Amino acid sequence: MEHPENSTEYAGLQVNAGVAQPAIVNPYLSSMRKKRHKLFTAGEYVEGILKGDVSMLSQAVTLIESVHPDHQVLAQEVIEKCLPYSGNSVRIGISGVPGAGKSTSIDAFGVHLLNNYGGKLAVLAIDPSSEKTKGSILGDKTRMEKLAVHPKSFIRPSPTAGSLGGVARKTRETIILCEAAGYNHIFVETVGVGQSETACHSMVDFFLLIQLAGTGDELQGIKRGIMEIADGIVINKADGENVEKAKLAASHFRNALHLFPMPESGVMPQVLCYSGFYELGIDEVLKMIFDHIGKVKESGYFQYKRNEQSKYWMYESINEHLKNNFYYNKTIKELIKPMEDDVLGGKITSFVAAKKLLDEYYSMLK
Amino acid sequence: MEHPENSTEYAGLQVNAGVAQPAIVNPYLSSMRKKRHKLFTAGEYVEGILKGDVSMLSQAVTLIESVHPDHQVLAQEVIEKCLPYSGNSVRIGISGVPGAGKSTSIDAFGVHLLNNYGGKLAVLAIDPSSEKTKGSILGDKTRMEKLAVHPKSFIRPSPTAGSLGGVARKTRETIILCEAAGYNHIFVETVGVGQSETACHSMVDFFLLIQLAGTGDELQGIKRGIMEIADGIVINKADGENVEKAKLAASHFRNALHLFPMPESGVMPQVLCYSGFYELGIDEVLKMIFDHIGKVKESGYFQYKRNEQSKYWMYESINEHLKNNFYYNKTIKELIKPMEDDVLGGKITSFVAAKKLLDEYYSMLK
Repeated sequence: MEHPENSTEYAGLQVNAGVAQPAIVNPYLSSMRKKRHKLFTAGEYVEGILKGDVSMLSQAVTLIESVHPDHQVLAQEVIEKCLPYSGNSVRIGISGVPGAGKSTSIDAFGVHLLNNYGGKLAVLAIDPSSEKTKGSILGDKTRMEKLAVHPKSFIRPSPTAGSLGGVARKTRETIILCEAAGYNHIFVETVGVGQSETACHSMVDFFLLIQLAGTGDELQGIKRGIMEIADGIVINKADGENVEKAKLAASHFRNALHLFPMPESGVMPQVLCYSGFYELGIDEVLKMIFDHIGKVKESGYFQYKRNEQSKYWMYESINEHLKNNFYYNKTIKELIKPMEDDVLGGKITSFVAAKKLLDEYYSMLK
Repeated sequence: MEHPENSTEYAGLQVNAGVAQPAIVNPYLSSMRKKRHKLFTAGEYVEGILKGDVSMLSQAVTLIESVHPDHQVLAQEVIEKCLPYSGNSVRIGISGVPGAGKSTSIDAFGVHLLNNYGGKLAVLAIDPSSEKTKGSILGDKTRMEKLAVHPKSFIRPSPTAGSLGGVARKTRETIILCEAAGYNHIFVETVGVGQSETACHSMVDFFLLIQLAGTGDELQGIKRGIMEIADGIVINKADGENVEKAKLAASHFRNALHLFPMPESGVMPQVLCYSGFYELGIDEVLKMIFDHIGKVKESGYFQYKRNEQSKYWMYESINEHLKNNFYYNKTIKELIKPMEDDVLGGKITSFVAAKKLLDEYYSMLK
């Protein structure tokens, strides 16, 4: 059962079972994985997952990430069976620009969390660029030295899926499996590129933004729109000579946050300083997160937000597929640029151009 | 030629020429206008518009706003013929919360602009809620006393069109006619509701945000995302005892703006104080706007932005129609809520739900 976004069925092409989707249809789709794993039955994966068997969980997640149609069918079965056991976790999104020290911070946050709060922790990542770079520094175990060897942690690099929508879907499905396996804390790491933060924010209960203090009075430029979705902002590298700059940066952010209305959560975002490398202020950051969670659980906003997110992903999937089906259509792909040129050349209005393309598209579907 | 967004052709229904679209298909569509105007030929409208005949311009704009299919065909002809004469203007978006004093401000800005810069000024509005309120306070001539009687001004309330996309389209088409009629300055007014600012921002060269100083240190809450798209922020009612509060508010906004990177325009947004009612600081506001325009014209960003906007509206129209065709589909409308409930009840994932709905939809199109 292919994800509608990736399916080419609707464009009239049939994808043969057992053959990886040809790159010509979706140029960004990664090639079929070369490694061959022994495949278990869906029931066997689920049984292992529910027991907390890390190896089974890991192989099941690999199924989710696979583009092989047979793997996808099996993965969906496993997900469906795990769904009733999912949901019982706190999902925390962690974002920051490259160089902000995310890996070191996640390492510190993760270890302190497991020591102080118990339970288990899964660390996932959303990084659509991993396709191009053939590997992501997110979820890179070598950069999370302590967490990587902790028996209660499960770390996974970002899936590759040819599009942000695909990556987001697979991450969300992976969360389901992790929760079924008893991971009651989930970190979802992302970089500040494109719409990654929006996708990350739409699947977590708390969105943490890692910032750095700039040199002098300058603050690192931050992508527009991020400040408003952060549930908490933390300034890293508040150590040694950098402490005063970090505190100044924190006060700038606090002032800026007051220009915005109270968030829907009813909890005002806080700004804290910490040092991931020297492990200073870590417990305060965790307390901020869990205090927030406590409040929104009590107010009912926690469950409300989860419901809204579930609906969001349904509509987002539909909308993405409707667009892909149009824009990847062979004829439309040829007509779009000339039509753009006519618009830019002042020959037709944007709206007339849109209608011409849509007329063409719908006549082909019939 | 109906706008794809409003056409029901694609859902398999035929709309009879001459009959207003039945409300059952699009519940938000306004009913056909009752007044009957004498209709001219497209050539006659265009001739009048190019001569700057306000009555002909006004009647042509009424055609654009009409949902009558015959009127729409005629309107599109007029627009097509006017297109080569359009573009030669400065388009300024003006937004602010209700109570910010937009009408009074536009009155002052408009009169000072005409006196100091010459030319002609058209004042338009984007207000999708006007459908429900049966009339908009935006573009309300009674609230722009001086401008309403100025021989070089043309004021028009927001079109009603059943959706923001429809309103935005008609406004953009109206701009084409106004520019062909020699209006080299265009104000587009909008309220801070829904996505109106985004639509307004996507059709203007400069986006001006009107703010008020709050009581004491509080600032009026501002909608998230607006601060980043404003090319200039102006604090109104900086008069009498309120001057100090206004200046304080201005400095808060200036500090907040520095947390964001330099905008694409290459021109840092300014924050100024003024009083629309007492006409203080008006010329400084206008100077800020025209200085900005001068810079972006020189850098080439002005034309680049206009091209991006033209492309944006083509893609936006396509995407809106693709979605409307799906979500207004009779069968889909019945299936959506139960599917949502299954997702929220944890029976299926968001993605599986999306696929089921899409499968149903495409099988119907064939």
